[in-house]
Amino acid sequence: MDKIRRNERMSAMMRMLAGAPNRIFTLSSFCEMFGSAKSTMSEDVDLLREVCTGFDLGEVDTVTGAAGGVRYRPTVSREKARAYIADLCERLSGAERVLPGGFLYYSDILSTPDIVNRMGEIIATEYYGSEPDFVLTMETKGIPVAFATANALGIPLVIARHSSKVYEGSAVNINYVSGSGNIETMSLSRRAVRENQRALIVDDFLRGGGTAKGMVDLMREFNVTVTGMAFVMATAVPEKKRISDVKALMTLTVEDGEPAAAVVKPADWLTGAPVSR
Amino acid sequence: MDKIRRNERMSAMMRMLAGAPNRIFTLSSFCEMFGSAKSTMSEDVDLLREVCTGFDLGEVDTVTGAAGGVRYRPTVSREKARAYIADLCERLSGAERVLPGGFLYYSDILSTPDIVNRMGEIIATEYYGSEPDFVLTMETKGIPVAFATANALGIPLVIARHSSKVYEGSAVNINYVSGSGNIETMSLSRRAVRENQRALIVDDFLRGGGTAKGMVDLMREFNVTVTGMAFVMATAVPEKKRISDVKALMTLTVEDGEPAAAVVKPADWLTGAPVSR
Repeated sequence: MDKIRRNERMSAMMRMLAGAPNRIFTLSSFCEMFGSAKSTMSEDVDLLREVCTGFDLGEVDTVTGAAGGVRYRPTVSREKARAYIADLCERLSGAERVLPGGFLYYSDILSTPDIVNRMGEIIATEYYGSEPDFVLTMETKGIPVAFATANALGIPLVIARHSSKVYEGSAVNINYVSGSGNIETMSLSRRAVRENQRALIVDDFLRGGGTAKGMVDLMREFNVTVTGMAFVMATAVPEKKRISDVKALMTLTVEDGEPAAAVVKPADWLTGAPVSR
Repeated sequence: MDKIRRNERMSAMMRMLAGAPNRIFTLSSFCEMFGSAKSTMSEDVDLLREVCTGFDLGEVDTVTGAAGGVRYRPTVSREKARAYIADLCERLSGAERVLPGGFLYYSDILSTPDIVNRMGEIIATEYYGSEPDFVLTMETKGIPVAFATANALGIPLVIARHSSKVYEGSAVNINYVSGSGNIETMSLSRRAVRENQRALIVDDFLRGGGTAKGMVDLMREFNVTVTGMAFVMATAVPEKKRISDVKALMTLTVEDGEPAAAVVKPADWLTGAPVSR
């Protein structure tokens, strides 16, 4: 590769930016890599911005200031998010997914990379503005989507456990009332979090909000502010959760009967109107 | 965006390909998207391939045949992998990471997206050839890196649990001997896997190999072939594990003393030579 052409520079930059969302790359690091003048790189970045906007592939931004540079965010437009989640809801609404007891099987959805990454991008789009320092989840099922959200936000993931483990060092334990009404323990390593940070809570499932409330209480012990809470799925019942300011992607209604049926719909905030019942 | 230029097409394609590694995009889908002739798109793809090779950013391939098209793989050259893991080892070798009992704290490394994605790409690079259908891990700490590996391979992640859960449907349970010598249970939903599939096992930590052997046994129950096993960290002792054909990224030696010290080194297969002791 002798002289590096614009299409080569732009493709390579796109790969690097998209591989590290929301991280700032200095313009001079790109200048050095491609042997180009700053003015040329600025034009490249402007063009990349137009490409991303034009094809609805997220946003390229220039950040000014001492720590400035170029940044890519895989934002998803509300329209695209709605269509994607509506498709997913249809896939989830079949009778063959309802398990004995009226539970819905959707573990596959929660660990298929294409789907998980897209859900993470949709959630991240809502929380770029609140600038969280890390994503918090409670083991186990929500970990992939929490990780994908953390990746899109360019921040670490922190995983709370059911009990403290020797290989996590000293930990803070709290008790909380789980969905089944039992008193359970939630544990987080002292090393995982620093005081005065900001947490975004992401998990797979919200019923009454007991576990979510436990995570909020846990963050209070660390002197950490919760900037938001997002879930893949929330049950329609109970309507009143133990926490507020929550965004779920989908709403689950289980209808009694033989066999029971599950109705999964995109959440109200996505559709912009109350879901028809 | 009136007439779409080559640099625009190439950047948009790069974003889409990199966002869905190892998935095949048909050339005609790109032709339609950009309103370009097939010959033009072929030239674009050839240029993209050169960009990725030239800047060591992975591989763009053309797959021929009925299900053919273009595919991107975020492969990492052995040289780059070695340098990356060596850096990581240095970060992990500080005395402040050794916990009482000689355990090493590295949960942060296991859930920082940049690091996890890169480890997933390094592991995936080794297993593209064996064409696994899914990645299997055992909850909890290995989930992010297993997910990142699954993402780079373009296949689903399957998570084995310590006990079967009502929301996973009927499950296969097996017993295994854990590292601490206890008999534990490993459970996997029947719906998670199909007969005759191929599994790549990915987990965070390998000591004696009890849990890994449990996963192998579990796969046998499902009539699934294990195509490989990869771990983030393996202990130097015991040298003989209960499983073979294993690739770990790093080797951990804990040296007794007050305080105990942890020495973390890149694994032999990465360095191409036995690690000096």
